Amino acid sequence: MNFKVKDLDIASGGIMVVVVNQEDAINLDLHHGDRVGIIYGKKHAHVIIDIAESKKTIPLGEIGLFEEVLDHLGVKKGKKVKLVLEEKPISVHYIKEKLKGKKLEAYKIHEIVKDIVAGRLSNIELTYFVAGSFARKLSSKETVALTKAMIDTGETLKVRSKIIVDKHCTGGVAGNRTTMIVVPIIAAAGLKMPKTSSRAITSPAGTADTMEVLTPVNTSKERMEKIVSNINGCIMWGGAMNLAPADDKIIKVERPLRIDAEGQMLASILAKKGSVGATHVLIDIPIGKETKIHNLRKAKHLGKRFVDIGKKLGMKVNYMTSNGNEPIGNGIGPALEAKDVLKVLQRSDSRPFDLERKSVMMAGRILEMAGKCNKGKGIELAQSILDSGKAGQKMKEIIKAQGGKIVKSSDIRVGRETYDLVADKSGKIKDIENHIISNVARFAGAPADKGAGLYLHVHEGDKVKKGDKILTIHADSKEKLKFAKKVLFSNKGVLIK
Amino acid sequence: MNFKVKDLDIASGGIMVVVVNQEDAINLDLHHGDRVGIIYGKKHAHVIIDIAESKKTIPLGEIGLFEEVLDHLGVKKGKKVKLVLEEKPISVHYIKEKLKGKKLEAYKIHEIVKDIVAGRLSNIELTYFVAGSFARKLSSKETVALTKAMIDTGETLKVRSKIIVDKHCTGGVAGNRTTMIVVPIIAAAGLKMPKTSSRAITSPAGTADTMEVLTPVNTSKERMEKIVSNINGCIMWGGAMNLAPADDKIIKVERPLRIDAEGQMLASILAKKGSVGATHVLIDIPIGKETKIHNLRKAKHLGKRFVDIGKKLGMKVNYMTSNGNEPIGNGIGPALEAKDVLKVLQRSDSRPFDLERKSVMMAGRILEMAGKCNKGKGIELAQSILDSGKAGQKMKEIIKAQGGKIVKSSDIRVGRETYDLVADKSGKIKDIENHIISNVARFAGAPADKGAGLYLHVHEGDKVKKGDKILTIHADSKEKLKFAKKVLFSNKGVLIK
Repeated sequence: MNFKVKDLDIASGGIMVVVVNQEDAINLDLHHGDRVGIIYGKKHAHVIIDIAESKKTIPLGEIGLFEEVLDHLGVKKGKKVKLVLEEKPISVHYIKEKLKGKKLEAYKIHEIVKDIVAGRLSNIELTYFVAGSFARKLSSKETVALTKAMIDTGETLKVRSKIIVDKHCTGGVAGNRTTMIVVPIIAAAGLKMPKTSSRAITSPAGTADTMEVLTPVNTSKERMEKIVSNINGCIMWGGAMNLAPADDKIIKVERPLRIDAEGQMLASILAKKGSVGATHVLIDIPIGKETKIHNLRKAKHLGKRFVDIGKKLGMKVNYMTSNGNEPIGNGIGPALEAKDVLKVLQRSDSRPFDLERKSVMMAGRILEMAGKCNKGKGIELAQSILDSGKAGQKMKEIIKAQGGKIVKSSDIRVGRETYDLVADKSGKIKDIENHIISNVARFAGAPADKGAGLYLHVHEGDKVKKGDKILTIHADSKEKLKFAKKVLFSNKGVLIK
Repeated sequence: MNFKVKDLDIASGGIMVVVVNQEDAINLDLHHGDRVGIIYGKKHAHVIIDIAESKKTIPLGEIGLFEEVLDHLGVKKGKKVKLVLEEKPISVHYIKEKLKGKKLEAYKIHEIVKDIVAGRLSNIELTYFVAGSFARKLSSKETVALTKAMIDTGETLKVRSKIIVDKHCTGGVAGNRTTMIVVPIIAAAGLKMPKTSSRAITSPAGTADTMEVLTPVNTSKERMEKIVSNINGCIMWGGAMNLAPADDKIIKVERPLRIDAEGQMLASILAKKGSVGATHVLIDIPIGKETKIHNLRKAKHLGKRFVDIGKKLGMKVNYMTSNGNEPIGNGIGPALEAKDVLKVLQRSDSRPFDLERKSVMMAGRILEMAGKCNKGKGIELAQSILDSGKAGQKMKEIIKAQGGKIVKSSDIRVGRETYDLVADKSGKIKDIENHIISNVARFAGAPADKGAGLYLHVHEGDKVKKGDKILTIHADSKEKLKFAKKVLFSNKGVLIK
């Protein structure tokens, strides 16, 4: 059956979609979600049917193509294409098996992931896969297979080295920009650490947002490989490369229900590590009432699963738990956090010591894992690399290699509109809530406004006198400052007792 | 935040969707699937966010509205509307509970179904609900709650009568147009039977398609109520009325994976019965290698669940099993099946006796259930109503009341292009496969071409001589006849031994 192409000027964000008029659909016995092939010259696209109820959108005898299909076929509006019936991909059958409670063999999981990446599964089918993995759980075997499939269906970084290290934090703590201190220490110690980081989704800053204050973070796989082979480390935005691309598509359908299937989470994290070729990985699991993991028992369970799945993937994984009850560092927001990081690396007297301590501990642990020193000597080695200025020097090399200019901490511009919260009584800082601090920073404009956020003058346990500064909000506009203040006052984020 | 309206000229088919430009989405911290309210004057729509990647589709400062939202707000393109942030509906939380394995209370199920009908749940969220009901099963209590919620969130037929009867067949048998014989018998016996039927989805004809050969089947609830109160019966297309509308939306997301969750299936069927006010329902469960139910054990299990759920809904449900191994009646396709039905009602010598026997048995069972005769006397009573011509007379009344003209069986036009399959040897008819017969009829053009399909000259067990006619294909065009022949020859649909 031949159809004239209509350019719909819409992108699905991955799935290959064609829109057919309802009357044509009835005549051809096509239903919403059915599979067809679209043929143009020698090109062939496997696409999913959507049905337009009005002839205004799609006239009879025409089909509307989404951007992904137009690109794939290299076809323009007005051209004739052929529509042929096709079977559902076999992966749909495997997804139903999982939903029924069957354990899936590795080749079946690979087939599902391959079709996710190719955009051959509709959101409904993909949702059934996530639902099945959540309701029926993924076994260790299945999780390993999922991780491998995610790695295999994307790009992988090729860095020539026996040891490649990586780290990950399960999140939920404001500030906490350890990566930007750990990477230069590790790289200065002579180990390869090709770090990819994420941007903020619900927080005021991701590591990629913060690093971007200092240097560009978008690059190609090839350039990243070159930088790491030259200077051992880098900190790039993972989203710019096609590493484990299935993950982003899965996360998109998990989001509406905030699905947190453990197997899928393990696979998602370890696939990113596998894609950069990591051989040694340290996982930081902050425990706190507002982080994902609320107690030590759960943290240990999760940590052991990371170690177990890592082993089956041929990866040495260690985990550590940390205090997730209050923000780490003083700055919250991209520029304010970047200032903190540079203060630590440049050995400023006003550097945040909690951030330094945690970073040194993590770097030390990684140095021990990779055999750079004896057990128990890692922290010492990491601290000496930091104290000697070698880590600060390495960070300069990284910033330059990624295309940035070298700046001092004090050169970094922060939001000019400010508000100081002062203590309304004397006492001890009892509680600083991550969640509220993050919200205040977001309403102040972070992460879109790089200089927005807030600066904590105190930490839990500090003694304050009435009138002492507790925190300073920074924003680019008076309006955003007003919003942030409103959030701060409607939620008591810092408790003095 | 104010936006200018763009009319997207697309209908989602139920879900309320707004499309926002990617840059606006980032500034407002909106993500795919988030909830917002759109306010226009005093009207307020709860809608789900979709994000356009290109500014061509949605320029900055504009939002694209789907037809459902435009209609709801009564707004036109170019007008200004206000966008406000909203929380996810609480039903999303209940859906996650189900997916986790919790049993849901009735009020939670009601909330989910209410939001499904209002278009407040995205396809992804709806899919999680179906996945949860499938993977975690629905208890009897949950199934009852789901059925009630489906009835309550749609229109219900009001017919004044203590007894209202209905029937349902679980399907999978070609021909099998018993409804069109049972309804006139029952109505002639003085019982109310307001029948709604479906159109074909994967078969060559649904009862609504076949009835439409004789008379219109689209009507309003009010007119249907009037017809039934005047002449006791009717056979309408259920899709034209808003009875248990949640069901259609659920089926739409079940289809891609062919999900057949038992609880959902029971609720779906019994909700349609409840919506017409049925007090007595007969369920026919054909058992066959190609029907949904393959053996007596499964049929009994399903039948008992129907009876049990019905009881909890205050409905008297009986079930019967029947032979589902071969087509019932001679004609397959809307016009060919309508001819069969009229032959039975008009007592033609060439009427299909298998169709008559099954219809009389079902009508008899219903007459007994409703107390119109003693146990064991139903078949006799039904047969006498049919033999006396009263059922035929009642069918004429029904056809007239629905707006049709009275015709004889021989007046019904069937596809002019024909092909006769003849026996290639003498022997006994061993097997006639429903699936292949249905496919041949569909490729011949049924159900869209009313006259297309095929006529079976033989049934299983019949003796044939070489050269005897086995079946005749009817089509409207030579091309479709060719397709149907191809399907017939590549699949041996009739086996002679």
